[in-house]
Amino acid sequence: MTFRASVLTLYPEMFPGPLAVSLAGRGLAEGAWSLETIQIRDFATDRHRSVDDTPAGGGAGMVMRADVLARAVDHASQPGDPRPRLLMSPRGKPLTQQRVRELAAGPGAVILCGRFEGVDQRVIDLRGLEEISVGDFILSGGEPAAIVLLDAVVRLLPGVMGNAQSGEEESFENGLLEHPHYTRPQEFEGVAIPDVLNSGHHAKIAAWRHEQAEKLTRKRRPDLITNRVTKDG
Amino acid sequence: MTFRASVLTLYPEMFPGPLAVSLAGRGLAEGAWSLETIQIRDFATDRHRSVDDTPAGGGAGMVMRADVLARAVDHASQPGDPRPRLLMSPRGKPLTQQRVRELAAGPGAVILCGRFEGVDQRVIDLRGLEEISVGDFILSGGEPAAIVLLDAVVRLLPGVMGNAQSGEEESFENGLLEHPHYTRPQEFEGVAIPDVLNSGHHAKIAAWRHEQAEKLTRKRRPDLITNRVTKDG
Repeated sequence: MTFRASVLTLYPEMFPGPLAVSLAGRGLAEGAWSLETIQIRDFATDRHRSVDDTPAGGGAGMVMRADVLARAVDHASQPGDPRPRLLMSPRGKPLTQQRVRELAAGPGAVILCGRFEGVDQRVIDLRGLEEISVGDFILSGGEPAAIVLLDAVVRLLPGVMGNAQSGEEESFENGLLEHPHYTRPQEFEGVAIPDVLNSGHHAKIAAWRHEQAEKLTRKRRPDLITNRVTKDG
Repeated sequence: MTFRASVLTLYPEMFPGPLAVSLAGRGLAEGAWSLETIQIRDFATDRHRSVDDTPAGGGAGMVMRADVLARAVDHASQPGDPRPRLLMSPRGKPLTQQRVRELAAGPGAVILCGRFEGVDQRVIDLRGLEEISVGDFILSGGEPAAIVLLDAVVRLLPGVMGNAQSGEEESFENGLLEHPHYTRPQEFEGVAIPDVLNSGHHAKIAAWRHEQAEKLTRKRRPDLITNRVTKDG
């Protein structure tokens, strides 16, 4: 089964973009996943092909119309389509590696790229859109977020990534940031690779790495430690 | 002054990608910002043009070499270059709208796209790389993350975005997710726009929106509320 991505956007020319290159690009060429883009504007019905209108209640920006978006979603996602319908939005639930893994194990995704001044709430509610955020910052639109999400998902699909890289799966698995990495040359600008890594003593190396990961996480992401304790306890 | 972005990558063909389109693309064409890509592989010195090697201490994956990366960084960022040097990495500090705003107010950025099995820690330390993460998930490389970061920054540059959209700046400013949006049609599939938004009563509308934003944030992102209390108190 091939992972099928349908992206609803006002800028189909942004796709596949970086997803045409490297791992994701090879996977696309070899049929490990497929990508279709759907131009939202094709579902407008007035003669100006309007997709947005001024916000009810006033305020800056424009809001994407529920009726136009619903037609686009219904076109992409026919009755019985098992794929989740995602809306890229800074209001969404933060994307996690766990959700990435779930998506990669599924049949694909219908991804709506909002413009961030907003999408009419009724299409979110009535079409069951799952709002997903890639971070607490504002993008020009959902498209770069969709590219990030697809890149994360596609690399987990069968046949896309070689075994050599499988180790990195662990990164958020144990709730810690990764330990520091080193490779040749042995000395760089007077700084040597830490002795323990040259010791050949696997248990000591594993302990050192865990300790470093723990230390970095406490310093930089104490929230991950708190969440882990909460989940475990 | 033009915001100058230099991106160090093994896949320069991923750029500008989606950044050639829409807001960022117009800004690029009109000179509101500039983008150069630097092929890291050009700074390898052996005859295989190697940029990575096996991890010291063992383990899966490959690690990007400190010496090769340092030469690439030094080429992009000469002495006296005031631009911050960023490394896109899931180990990094999560990108925030606050950091996006700071970057947009500065002279540009040198952005190193790591491959996520790792970058030799010594180049991070000795070149003062600021590790930035766009989320708790794993990408095939730093490139999609760099695109997201640049998209977020570029839209804040003078002349890139019209005034019409300035309202959305507020999204993470007050520490809350955005309230729901509505626009015409008045009724969609039997669901009407909430009455208060048609009332014309500005204070009531503002209060309703704040209450909705508060409610959504409590439900979906209680961490934002906790952080706000901590910061205020």
